[in-house]
Order: sequence, then C-alpha cells, then structure tokens
Amino acid sequence: MTVRFGVLGAGRIGQVHAKAISEVPGATLVAVADAIEAAAQALHDQYGCDIRSIEQIEQSDDIDAVIICTPTDTHADLIESFVKAGKAVFCEKPVDLDVARARQVIETVEAEDGVLMVGFQRRFDPDFRALKAAIDAGRIGEVEMVTLTSRDPGAPPHDYITRSGGIFRDMTIHDFDVARWLLGEEVESVMAQASVLTDPKIEELGDYDSVNVILCTASGKQCTITNSRRASYGYDQRIEVHGSKGSVSAMNQREANIEIANGEGYTKPPLLNFFMSRYTAAYAAEIAAFVAALEQGQPTETTGQDGLRALELADAALQSAKSGQAVLL
Amino acid sequence: MTVRFGVLGAGRIGQVHAKAISEVPGATLVAVADAIEAAAQALHDQYGCDIRSIEQIEQSDDIDAVIICTPTDTHADLIESFVKAGKAVFCEKPVDLDVARARQVIETVEAEDGVLMVGFQRRFDPDFRALKAAIDAGRIGEVEMVTLTSRDPGAPPHDYITRSGGIFRDMTIHDFDVARWLLGEEVESVMAQASVLTDPKIEELGDYDSVNVILCTASGKQCTITNSRRASYGYDQRIEVHGSKGSVSAMNQREANIEIANGEGYTKPPLLNFFMSRYTAAYAAEIAAFVAALEQGQPTETTGQDGLRALELADAALQSAKSGQAVLL
Amino acid sequence: MTVRFGVLGAGRIGQVHAKAISEVPGATLVAVADAIEAAAQALHDQYGCDIRSIEQIEQSDDIDAVIICTPTDTHADLIESFVKAGKAVFCEKPVDLDVARARQVIETVEAEDGVLMVGFQRRFDPDFRALKAAIDAGRIGEVEMVTLTSRDPGAPPHDYITRSGGIFRDMTIHDFDVARWLLGEEVESVMAQASVLTDPKIEELGDYDSVNVILCTASGKQCTITNSRRASYGYDQRIEVHGSKGSVSAMNQREANIEIANGEGYTKPPLLNFFMSRYTAAYAAEIAAFVAALEQGQPTETTGQDGLRALELADAALQSAKSGQAVLL
Amino acid sequence: MTVRFGVLGAGRIGQVHAKAISEVPGATLVAVADAIEAAAQALHDQYGCDIRSIEQIEQSDDIDAVIICTPTDTHADLIESFVKAGKAVFCEKPVDLDVARARQVIETVEAEDGVLMVGFQRRFDPDFRALKAAIDAGRIGEVEMVTLTSRDPGAPPHDYITRSGGIFRDMTIHDFDVARWLLGEEVESVMAQASVLTDPKIEELGDYDSVNVILCTASGKQCTITNSRRASYGYDQRIEVHGSKGSVSAMNQREANIEIANGEGYTKPPLLNFFMSRYTAAYAAEIAAFVAALEQGQPTETTGQDGLRALELADAALQSAKSGQAVLL
Repeated sequence: MTVRFGVLGAGRIGQVHAKAISEVPGATLVAVADAIEAAAQALHDQYGCDIRSIEQIEQSDDIDAVIICTPTDTHADLIESFVKAGKAVFCEKPVDLDVARARQVIETVEAEDGVLMVGFQRRFDPDFRALKAAIDAGRIGEVEMVTLTSRDPGAPPHDYITRSGGIFRDMTIHDFDVARWLLGEEVESVMAQASVLTDPKIEELGDYDSVNVILCTASGKQCTITNSRRASYGYDQRIEVHGSKGSVSAMNQREANIEIANGEGYTKPPLLNFFMSRYTAAYAAEIAAFVAALEQGQPTETTGQDGLRALELADAALQSAKSGQAVLL
Repeated sequence: MTVRFGVLGAGRIGQVHAKAISEVPGATLVAVADAIEAAAQALHDQYGCDIRSIEQIEQSDDIDAVIICTPTDTHADLIESFVKAGKAVFCEKPVDLDVARARQVIETVEAEDGVLMVGFQRRFDPDFRALKAAIDAGRIGEVEMVTLTSRDPGAPPHDYITRSGGIFRDMTIHDFDVARWLLGEEVESVMAQASVLTDPKIEELGDYDSVNVILCTASGKQCTITNSRRASYGYDQRIEVHGSKGSVSAMNQREANIEIANGEGYTKPPLLNFFMSRYTAAYAAEIAAFVAALEQGQPTETTGQDGLRALELADAALQSAKSGQAVLL
Repeated sequence: MTVRFGVLGAGRIGQVHAKAISEVPGATLVAVADAIEAAAQALHDQYGCDIRSIEQIEQSDDIDAVIICTPTDTHADLIESFVKAGKAVFCEKPVDLDVARARQVIETVEAEDGVLMVGFQRRFDPDFRALKAAIDAGRIGEVEMVTLTSRDPGAPPHDYITRSGGIFRDMTIHDFDVARWLLGEEVESVMAQASVLTDPKIEELGDYDSVNVILCTASGKQCTITNSRRASYGYDQRIEVHGSKGSVSAMNQREANIEIANGEGYTKPPLLNFFMSRYTAAYAAEIAAFVAALEQGQPTETTGQDGLRALELADAALQSAKSGQAVLL
Repeated sequence: MTVRFGVLGAGRIGQVHAKAISEVPGATLVAVADAIEAAAQALHDQYGCDIRSIEQIEQSDDIDAVIICTPTDTHADLIESFVKAGKAVFCEKPVDLDVARARQVIETVEAEDGVLMVGFQRRFDPDFRALKAAIDAGRIGEVEMVTLTSRDPGAPPHDYITRSGGIFRDMTIHDFDVARWLLGEEVESVMAQASVLTDPKIEELGDYDSVNVILCTASGKQCTITNSRRASYGYDQRIEVHGSKGSVSAMNQREANIEIANGEGYTKPPLLNFFMSRYTAAYAAEIAAFVAALEQGQPTETTGQDGLRALELADAALQSAKSGQAVLL
C-alpha cells in the first residue's frame, strides 16, 4: 500500500514535510496547494507533484492523506473538512489557539472516526526517543522529576508574537507535550512565572520572553520547564529525567563535533541555530510514523487529544503567571 | 596578626573546620569544647589544642573568634553570648529555624557591632567562584535566569528530618543563598511545588523529598531550584546561569577523571558521594576568608543577614508549597 | 548541466553511491552494471535506472561519468578503459594494490587528460572538514603533530584479509590520506610497528591487527597513526592536530546523544558501529564534490596521485614493520 | 612507628616533599639541608625542622630516611652514601643520566640491602591509579595498546636543556615509566622520531622538542608516546589504554570545572598549567606510599630498577631517533 499525500501550504514547514514524504518508502506526494503560486511551483518542480487548490485536494480520489501547513487560524476548519472528506490528517500544532474550538475539532474527528495526528516532532527526535526508550526499559526506575530546557536563538518577529497566542502557546507548548510524554501521567497542577527580559517591545505586545513552569501530577511527579526567547549560543534543547534508580539526559547538538584548545581554553562550536536543522531527523521520522500508522491501521503516536492537552497546559500556565496561583486541571 | 580560634562542637563539621584552621596561615586553634569528651580529645590529640568548656572559651582572653558547630537549637544563644563577649563568630547555618528569633540575633549582633559570618560554604567552592567571576567579568552579560540542581545521594535519618525544619530549611537553604548571590537582586516572589516520592515515612514526618522552586526578583530575573533527597549517582550539585550574552555552568565532580569504554558504552565514575568530600576545598576557603576578613577589618563575605534572608526564602517556599500560591516578600 | 552517471558494481558501496547520486542536484543515475542480476535489479527498482553491461556503459553516449565499485583487482583496468572512453571516473580506493601498476594507471589518466577521483571519503566528513577549516583559518597556528586513531569494531572476514593487501593497504590507507591532507607537506619517513593481538589466524594469513605508524615530513612535522582491528565500543575514528598556537580535535560519533547516570556512573552509548553509518554524510558529500568539480571543470579534491601516495605510504609502513627500520621516501 | 625524615635540597620539589611529610601521619620532618641558607631557613620556619649539612644528616641517628632533591649530578653519590649509612632513600628521577653509573648504584643498593624509591609521581596520581585499578579489575580485558600524550606548556630554560640529558631523559622518562607500569611486560623494541619545531635554539643545543615513540613488548603489546615542549592550552597529560574488552582513559585536569557558552561556542578553561599543580595529589601520595612501605617493611612501589629501566628506554629512544632504526633491548 502507498499513502498518497496532499500538502496544504508550501512554506518552510510544508517543504520539510514534502521532502520527508519523498524519502519515506510507501508514501507519494501527489499534490500541493498554496495561495502563493511560486511556492507551489517550487514543490512541483522538485518532486513532480500536481498543483491543486485546497478544495480540489479535498475532492481528489487519488489522495489519502493531507499535511496541513497553513496558518494557524485555518487549522480547525481544514481538519474538520478533510476529516469529513475521509482523508487522514496530519496537522502542525496547534489545532487552534482557542481551547473550546480545539475541543470541538477533536469531537468532530472522533464523531467521523477520523485520523488526526498533531505535529509534535520532538517526540520523534532520535535522541529523545533513545532517552524515552531508556526510561521504558527501566534504566532509571520510576520517573520522579523531568527538567526541560528550551531556549530559542532569538525572538520571532513582533507580528508573529501578536498572532501566536504568546510564548506558552507557541513555544512552551512543545515542552508541555514532551512533559506529558515523559511523565507518563496527566498533569494536575501548573505553576508559572513569566518575565520580559530581552526586549521591552515584547511586554508592549502583552507577551513574555523568559518563563519557568512547574507541573505536578497526581502522584507527585514534577516537571520544570525553562524557556527563553534568546540564547546567544544557539538553539538550546535539553531534557533530563530523574528517576528512582538513576537519571537520563539528552544533550544539545552542534554543527560539528570538534574542539579547539588554546590559551583561552577548550572551545566547541555553538549549537545548531535553527529548529529546522536541529529537528531534521525528527521531521522525517514523524512523517514516517504517520505513514506507518496509516498502513497498519494503528492509532497515530500523537493525536488531537495530545494537541488539546498541551494547549490546556499552556492556558493554565498563562493564567498562573498572571495570577501567581497554581492552576489545577 | 594571628586569629586565635575556639571551636564549639567537635563533631563531623567541627573537625573539618579545625583542619581548616590548622592549614590557614594566620590562624591558630587554641581550644575546643564538646560535651562528648572523646570528640574533644580527638581534636586535642591531632592539633594540640586545649579542651575547655563553652563558658571557659567565652571568657578566654587568648581566643579571638569561635566556630559554632553545635546543634542548631543552640546557635542563636551562642551567637548572642559570644558576640557580647567580644568574639568574632562563625556559625554554621542556620542562625535559628525561627525567623523571628534569627532576626533578633542579627539585631543583637548589629547592636554589639559584632562580627557574624554564616557558613554558606558553597559561595567559596572554587568552581562556583570561577562561575561567579565569569559573571562579574561580564562574560555572559546581564544575569537573566539561574538554574540550581541539588540532589543528595540519600535522605538524612528520620530523626534529623524532624529536627531540621524540613527540606526547604535544611537543604534548599543553601540554594536560596546561592540564588541570592548569583541573581544580584533580592527575591520578591517565591513559588514552590513539593512531593514525597522516595519514602512514605518522610510524608508522615510532615516533610517532602522532591521540590522545585521558582524565585523572581523585582526586575524579573528568575531562578529555579530542583532538589531531591535521593540520587543514585552521587551528590549532584550543578549551577547554570543564563545571561543576555551567554551562559555559564559549573559541572559536577567525580572521584576520578577516567572513562571506560566497552560494548555497554562510555562510562565515567559516579559523583563524589558526600557533601564533605565535594566541598572540601570550599570549607577550607570559607575559613580562610573569615580569617582574612578579621585580619583586614573588613565585613565577612556572608553575614547574619544572608542567613536570615535564606531562612525567609525557605519559609516562603514552604508556605507556597502548602498554599499553591506565590508568596511575595 | 546535469552529470549522467553509470555505477559499476551494485554491492554495498555501489548502493551508497547510487543513493548519493539520487540526492545531489545536477546528477542523474542513468545505468548500473553488476554481474549479479539481483543486485543491479535492486538499484533499477529503487532509482529507475537502466541495467547495462560494463561494456555498454563504456560505449553509452548518455553517460558522462562512472563510479567504480567493483572488486579491487578490476580497478586499474576499468579506470584505464573508461578514461580512454572519455568518461570521468570516480574509483573506490585503491587504484591497485601494486604501486607500479597504480603508477601506470595514473600516467594513462594524465596522458588521456582524464578525470580520476579516488574515494577517500574521510576528507569529506563534516566534522573532519570543520577541523581542517579551523586549521586553514589559522586557529592552531602551524601544524606540528597529527594524531590519528582508527579502530574497527571487528576484523573483516579472513578471505577478505587475503585479498585486501593487508591492514596497511586496506585500513591504514585512509589514515595515510588524512595524514597527507592535514600535514600539508609530503611525508619523507615512515616507521611502523605491527603485531597480531586479536586473532592468531590473522598471523597465519600474514597480516597484522594492531599497528602504530609514525610519519615525518621534511620540516619535521610528525603524524602518529594507531589502528586496531577490534574495538568493543564501536567504530573509533578520531583526529587530533597539535599546532604552534593550539590544538583541534574531532570527536567520535554515537547513535544517540544521551547519558544515563546511576550507581555505576555516567554512561553514554557506544559509538556508531559501522563505517557506512559513521560516514553517511561523507559519502554523500564526496559525490557532491565530484559532481561540482565536473560541472565547474575544476580538478577533483582527491586524485589518482592521492591514491598512489597513500599506497606508497602503506608499502613503506609494511616494509618498516618488517625491517624495524625507518623507510625514506 | 614514625619515619623521621631529612630532606636534601630545599628547592621547589624539596618544598613539595616537605609539605607532604608534614601531612602524612607517621612521618616527621627532622632536618633539611641546602647550600642556599635562605632555602633551608624557609623550611625551618614553616615546619620547625632543623637545618643540618648533608653530612650531618647522613650521620644523624634521629633520621631514618632521606628525600634527595638535589641536582641530578649528585643523585648517584648521595644514594650510595645514604644507603651505606643505613637510611632509606627516596630520590627524584633520574638515578643518573648515565646508564652504567645508574646500574652501579642499583647494585650498591642491592648489595647493602638498602631501600631506594625513585620518584615517578605519576604512578601515584589518583586518576591514573583509578585507570590502573580498572585494568587490574579486568574491565578492559588484556592490555593491547597504550597511548600516552604529554605536552608541556613551554620548554624549560636553555641551560636546563643542556644539563637534563635531553627530552627523552628529562621528559619522556616519565612516560617510559608509565608505559612499563601499564603494559605489564618489559619493552623489547623502541622506535622514535624526533624534531625541533618550536625553537631553533633547541636544535643548536642538540635536543628535540617534538617526539613520538613506539614501544613494543615480546607479546606484541604496543605503546605510543607523544611529547611536545609547547602547548598553548596548558599541561597536557593523558593516558588511554586499549584492551581486548574495552578501553580506559584518564582525562586532563583544569583549574575550574566550568563552561561558558556564547556566540563563539562552549568554552572550558585551559588546563592546569604547571606540573606541580597538576600532580599535587600525586606528590603527596608517593611520600605516603614510601612511608607505608617503610612502616610495613615492604618493597617500595617504584624502585631503583624502575629508574634504570626508564633510563634505558630513554637511551634507546634517542638512539632510534638518530639512527632511524628500532632499538632492541
């Protein structure tokens, strides 16, 4: 069986997914849609796929699944219509910035018995999977405390911040998903502290750039998340999980594994500076996992529910940062 | 000038300080006091110092300074009487478990124009000092976020837990002091989450074994503290400081800098397993700093105020952990 | 311009190169030849290329360049006939196990004004290129001493050893090429020590499994090479270059960048265990470099001369190991 | 029992040993001798020991053992006279620069049934001992190849070079001893390559500054030694031992275990820059081992024979470097 794909949105992330489809055995890129003709044309030129409108893709018999890479505010509607059209859907996070709307979408997917995978690529990163495998193999005993550190090289453009739902919903949301994945229990309590330290304009826009969050589950397992919108040394992405028998951590990645020694000391290069180069393998692996789930008729590894839960945690964190109170879920 | 010392309490930490005194040029150990004769005798045998009672030391003309290493509940009274007797006082933390009493002691010290140094040895650890020096030299720009990880190899005996004031006052208190030292601003808000994950008996005793704390200053600088009473891999003591221009971290220490590679992977030895071996150099350096301050008539690097502030943060953390609300100072 | 390729030999390394061709913009795989039909068929199925005989490829007008991945004893003849047929040739090392014959081939290539690139993929490894770039940028001053460590996870099959020309010609040859590349000067003196430590059968076959070599250039720059046929911890590939102003090293690569800590210590996974997974990026990059050279009409980065020189060093090392004398070139 | 010491020579290394004696339980520093009065006086002031002439120390009934820290050319005579005087002798390496004379001294020691420990402090370094313990515990199986890297921050003064016997006898000699210790078999063959790369004056003085050596034992175990007289990044001291089941290495030491990350990368401080700070613990441990051997009437861990063997290897290496031939022992 071959899964025949349509890609909605041929921007940066759409290109990443198109490349992944071209490399996964059992997947074919049939068509791409994009309001910007040149963007769609570029994918056509590279992979020989058709250029169609979103509506045409929805009605195409030769398309089994779509990857939604369009702007956030179109996600909910597109998921609903494509699920109703009988297509399997892979959608970049978030389902919607509004929890109520996201919940509605999940219900629609369930009512239609549809397939919805939400793009939390970190779960597919080879290092993070090796860390998870070590936990699952009992190498560290019972998980007790998770420490997540995510720092971006720099803040996104101001106009993105106004549309993104803020740092908890556009950045920390990935950590919320990773936290749920690693804690192995649902979070019951969220505490957050948030500041603006890198750019006063971010405060004017009503957002934060430096946040810390503590999550706690029913049995008392905890997770701390540290986020900054600025890191001079690159894209900082670390996980540490402390358990009853030991600890496991995943280290950062740099472009070259070299070290220069001189009178100043021993210096390794800065980190990979961009989420796309850091998570190249993860993006490919998540599409491969989506294809494998479809082929085997299994549930996808991340679902609409996962997208919803992460969003709920983001909302709770924002509320806690504003109120100074733990928010109970 | 030579600083002539009396050591009050010849237990584990008293022995450490006696050794430090014997090695610092400009310091002499004149006398030791301990209710347990054999303990005092051991120090006498090793360093040739007199054995005297606490009262005798207080009245000794040939003693300039004392190191208080007696049980916590004697600290406040001893500080007050020795300061009144004109002795410079170095006291192990805490001044007292009760903030009001500790505040009273600080006032007495100030009224008497006395010298009180509180034993926060971490500030004197060579690695942590190198980290602080890097910050002070502007290597990472403005401090934004501090991350402190402290995990003990195992919990203290149950009866110690009942006397210690609990994890925030006996363990996190060191991190509170380090946080204040590194943030360079007073903390205004404290959030804490606390669980019992390693031993249900600890819950019965009314304490916690796994805690996370977020501190925030007036300008929005933040610090997270992670503590566990159990770490299979040794005594885990890490600092990371993230600033506007970069980051600096201090790594853990192990007994031997070797690595064994085989089919299982590349393995380095566990960490030093005991706070006294981890902080050997720090204990010596803090006594040297105390002596240097006395010789030069300068204020000591840590003071009673530092002890009080750390205690206030511990109280606030406990209150936050219980209430689920940020505590403002 | 597109470079149209024929691949001779569809075994393990032929497959690697076919994949590389399929991914390099400006390159197309037109045809494959292999005595084993199923092997050729597999490449046809994957890349849609023709299946032709070696002779047909030689005479094909629609083929500009060939990749020679056939057994070693066919290399020399194939290079000569394809160069005479006007094809650009990329040949896996060695040109020939016999220096005289290799020299003859180089002469033929030069007489025909042909293009011959010899496959020393290590020069194209991203880490090693970053190391070389640091040297070229003056980061370590003048190169003084190069240290190369190459250990294989296990010895090749015994029958390969009898055909390979021995450890110096099949394994150390890569290090000889890297040494020349990094020293920046031709080697004048070769000293070698060789033993059999892992398998007595290797001694019966007249080969060694554990060797050390010291190279020296006219100006006194030195290089040591350490090789073993056995390493329990994976495929060990390290470079260290010491210069007048500093040092640069390239570290080993492992499958996952994680670390597990417990009572046994801190353990990272073993190394990548196979030269093909270790040098995946290098194999792709060398084909890209070959294509780029052809497109721009520039000399290839490695040439037949490089292949010849490395072989001469291998012969010299073998002679030194047997005689106990430095061999001068 | 207390071992009563005389120290001959109150220079840099004499001071190190005097301090070690003062800290080892069971050892007392009774007297020091030095031609320079101020040097002897300094030790007297610090440790309260007598100042005596070498002859007086030889005749002192209250002295059991001496530490010889005088210039190299006095070692042989002093060892002989003190052994004859019934004193246990600890002598800094070398016994003598001349192998024949050294052999004579060893014979005298044996004839007198005397005790002679030669100061190869590296064997007592805690990291190197942990490495050796891992080997002895079978962690890496049979030792196959040893790799020793020793680089000094800078060359010694020119006049020292003229007196030291050259790089093999003053610097590599420590590596020869470590090689013997770790190989666990006597060396049968020595190959060496030597250049002058850092300072042409060193060539004028008839010495080298950059050398590589390959040692081989009867069973084919090998050891490579890399030495340079210049390393911009500090005092480089590494050991790696490769065995049939794995590998063990000892890493370099730096002053502080911190790391600074910024746009330039991740930088750790340079190495400890001086052999005395690098080997502080080793110097103390070797004196403790000497005292322990005397107390228990056991042979010392390093002996005159070890000094002799290392010197023979140095001579062989020099001969090989000059002749280009392996020297068989």
